[in-house]
Amino acid sequence: MRWWGWGDPAHPPVLPAHALAFLGEHVGVAGKPRAPVALAHVRVAPSALRAAVRVQLAALLGERGVRVEHAERVAHAAGKGYPDLVRMRAGAPEGAPDAVVYPTAHEQLRALLELCERESLAVVPFGGGTSVVGGVAPLRGEHAGVLALDTAGMAQVLGIDGESATVSVQAGVRAPALERHLAARGLTLGHFPQSFEYVSLGGCAATRSAGQASSGYGAIAKMVVGARMAAPGGELALPALPASAAGPDLRALVVGSEGTLGVISELALRVRPAPRERIYEGAFFEDLQAGMQALRAMARAHALPEVARLSDEQETRMQLALAGAGAKGRLTRAYLGVRGYAQGCLTILGFEGEREEVAWRRRRALALVRAHGGLGVGRSPGEAWLRGRFEAPYMRDELLAHGVMVETLETAAQWSSLARLHRTVGEAIAAALRAQGTPGLVMCHVSHVYETGASLYFTLIARQREGDEIGQWLAVKRAAGDAIAAGGGTITHHHGVGRDHPRWLPGELGDGGVAALGALKARLDPAGIMNPGKLLPALSAG
Amino acid sequence: MRWWGWGDPAHPPVLPAHALAFLGEHVGVAGKPRAPVALAHVRVAPSALRAAVRVQLAALLGERGVRVEHAERVAHAAGKGYPDLVRMRAGAPEGAPDAVVYPTAHEQLRALLELCERESLAVVPFGGGTSVVGGVAPLRGEHAGVLALDTAGMAQVLGIDGESATVSVQAGVRAPALERHLAARGLTLGHFPQSFEYVSLGGCAATRSAGQASSGYGAIAKMVVGARMAAPGGELALPALPASAAGPDLRALVVGSEGTLGVISELALRVRPAPRERIYEGAFFEDLQAGMQALRAMARAHALPEVARLSDEQETRMQLALAGAGAKGRLTRAYLGVRGYAQGCLTILGFEGEREEVAWRRRRALALVRAHGGLGVGRSPGEAWLRGRFEAPYMRDELLAHGVMVETLETAAQWSSLARLHRTVGEAIAAALRAQGTPGLVMCHVSHVYETGASLYFTLIARQREGDEIGQWLAVKRAAGDAIAAGGGTITHHHGVGRDHPRWLPGELGDGGVAALGALKARLDPAGIMNPGKLLPALSAG
Repeated sequence: MRWWGWGDPAHPPVLPAHALAFLGEHVGVAGKPRAPVALAHVRVAPSALRAAVRVQLAALLGERGVRVEHAERVAHAAGKGYPDLVRMRAGAPEGAPDAVVYPTAHEQLRALLELCERESLAVVPFGGGTSVVGGVAPLRGEHAGVLALDTAGMAQVLGIDGESATVSVQAGVRAPALERHLAARGLTLGHFPQSFEYVSLGGCAATRSAGQASSGYGAIAKMVVGARMAAPGGELALPALPASAAGPDLRALVVGSEGTLGVISELALRVRPAPRERIYEGAFFEDLQAGMQALRAMARAHALPEVARLSDEQETRMQLALAGAGAKGRLTRAYLGVRGYAQGCLTILGFEGEREEVAWRRRRALALVRAHGGLGVGRSPGEAWLRGRFEAPYMRDELLAHGVMVETLETAAQWSSLARLHRTVGEAIAAALRAQGTPGLVMCHVSHVYETGASLYFTLIARQREGDEIGQWLAVKRAAGDAIAAGGGTITHHHGVGRDHPRWLPGELGDGGVAALGALKARLDPAGIMNPGKLLPALSAG
Repeated sequence: MRWWGWGDPAHPPVLPAHALAFLGEHVGVAGKPRAPVALAHVRVAPSALRAAVRVQLAALLGERGVRVEHAERVAHAAGKGYPDLVRMRAGAPEGAPDAVVYPTAHEQLRALLELCERESLAVVPFGGGTSVVGGVAPLRGEHAGVLALDTAGMAQVLGIDGESATVSVQAGVRAPALERHLAARGLTLGHFPQSFEYVSLGGCAATRSAGQASSGYGAIAKMVVGARMAAPGGELALPALPASAAGPDLRALVVGSEGTLGVISELALRVRPAPRERIYEGAFFEDLQAGMQALRAMARAHALPEVARLSDEQETRMQLALAGAGAKGRLTRAYLGVRGYAQGCLTILGFEGEREEVAWRRRRALALVRAHGGLGVGRSPGEAWLRGRFEAPYMRDELLAHGVMVETLETAAQWSSLARLHRTVGEAIAAALRAQGTPGLVMCHVSHVYETGASLYFTLIARQREGDEIGQWLAVKRAAGDAIAAGGGTITHHHGVGRDHPRWLPGELGDGGVAALGALKARLDPAGIMNPGKLLPALSAG
């Protein structure tokens, strides 16, 4: 992965020229793209790891399990949030881990955490490193040093229980590797977050991730049937069970713990038959409200597709603009204009599963589309979405090079709050951008649909305020978060809390909820070495 | 509710004469039914509640909110487990609350818990009082006294959010009252435990209950989208949200907390459209294995009915025997014999929902029944089951009067463990009964089906060992629990832990899990007044 951005360094550019022109017109862009600084010029403080401690770590993990090279430290200096990338491109990360450690087994983990506790080393669990909320920031809190604990060495698929449809994995296994392993056996996990190419399953569980196909396969919390987590104060080992009433479900404490309670070492996950049929297609609604009502009706009728996405008017306009200035794009826009959907909202419906079941569910879903005034526009928008589903982070890098800020943030709420929340959050973001002197584009889609509500995913695009990129971002982030909290939304549907969202956590969990988490933290991580400054910074040494 | 047993005192007898004859033949019964002692003769120690404390309680709750009458104390002296009923019928409960208190609002609750903490009064939350695992036993632990906190005064439906399909309730609302309220608005919760007639929703949430229709509607944990819990050390107030990634899901700490962390005061619950179509029907499989495979296939194909029950050979035999010695019963048995299902397993499939959707799902489910060698036998077994679905506890009372022990216990496991678990637990129960000199009938059904596994629900029937009924029960319970733990099952799928199952909890949650719960307990209930002796007795003052 590129240390200064997203993805394979060999990945070709994805931003079409006409898109840049479109953005130039709407938000302004810098003339010439600026490259990130060279790796060697990234400024990180010398490692504070004492030689004696390094020897202990190497004795435990082997020489190759303890890395202090510049490239390793830089690669683990930040996640992939907007401020991370701004800082990394400039060669000025906020910090870097004093070392990167690579344990290979649960037992080693326990010993490693004991050592870290003894030596006052903060531990930042690091899977794919894709957090967009500062979840892997190398904060040491009040400790003598900080290690990135990379789980790449714990990436084995431990076994498949075909009869029970579960797979056991080490937490470091990456999503693509697991899907390949499962596909060879006719199975799928069905977890496809936008970060799919890099995420570890442990990271997905730790951040309570939801994939793009969550409306069908469920979010990661529905997939985790068993878990093992090593903590300085003990271990949680929860067997794979389909259900239980043996007290509170402690799996729910592992999921979403964000490395602040311990390191997830193993997971048992529910899998499903690999889909024999996949139909991805598009439809237009006259407005967002009609589209939301259709999705709600599908949820209520148990007719949801696996992927259900609904873009608002602004995002739809942007997508049509990006889709091409060419003949096909013009044709599409003309067709929609004629049919009265020129200002409409595009929805992508992706059905996966067994052929007959998909056919039937799709028929019902499309009937609900029509019942809400929707217009089917065939498979090409669906297939285009599928092709580009993991491209957004690549595009973000290219826009950053052109001095364009791209940030995404998300929430979820009950259906009865959703339309108002969409409006108030969008307005708050737009107002904050204007107040910064950088009016921008604000767009949104619904992308995870439930019986009782849905998620909202906002994208904002604006010209960077050169020299104050972080201040600009923070102002927008604050305004959005405040509007979300005021509007009854969760502060995060699937990005997690990390370092960016804790200020809103007491509002959502209440003081009692924060205290309960604090009590767990105190028991499992009494010295506060686990991922300080994240999730519950007031309760850790961070 | 009858203080010595189950249900409305006016409920007519349900045990047919031929069933008694069948049991007389197979396990032996006492000649003449014995009535429970008279209420006035039930022995309870005088209330230890000091007058000064009673005055404080009355000042808070009103005079009618603090009850110390004999009948009230006896009615709150036990739940409805087998040992509870044995003791109550004999007029010798293990104890009784010193008073029964009836708060009416969340704010009152907080003040009440503070008072109890100050005065060293243990608090036993009491909803429907239907626990079969000692969950409402009036244990005082090391405290000066114990109160039953009856939630009957907190039984309002607070509001319905029709757009979001959620209902907000005070936790004391009873399931039938809520279903009536919802039915008038075309909605249903869909939660129908066997204790339906009496349970409170707070009790269902506290015990992580699963209803008979859980294969379709999900267990209570899937219905709780928001919750409020008052605890001596604070309050948990979790808003209604469809999903979130804001740290661990604390709703999962409220669900299953069994009154040991606090008192659930309010819930927000997902509701569904009331079903327009209900089809309940029966089918026979040649053996349990074939039936399990069919249910597993339905789960995998998303074709499960709302109610999916599969009786093993012994339970099927018993059901056919109970169904009648008359012409119809003989005819049924003859028909099954001719078709080769004489030793088979009966399954009940209950489909509920929108007409077209039910028709389609049912067609797929029945195709899977046939694919696994099953034989549809029409609606009469399904409708008979529906009629009698809440009758078992009434029958248990009548059998108790005849000196017959009836106990049920349950577990769940992954599909790959299920057949073996069925065998080993059944054998352990049978062996324990034989060792007591009271060989009995042991039968089982699968009643909650998941993609990765299912529940097993055992019923055992044997002659009581007169004078040592509790010892006899305990021996069987221990043997079953040990076999469940050894076989990879959860110690409880839906009855909860209560006072009967804690010995197996560390085996399931691990020491780390128990410690995590202990940390929560210490924070939310530092004085250990909440339901001592349950769930985590070693961690409370019980």
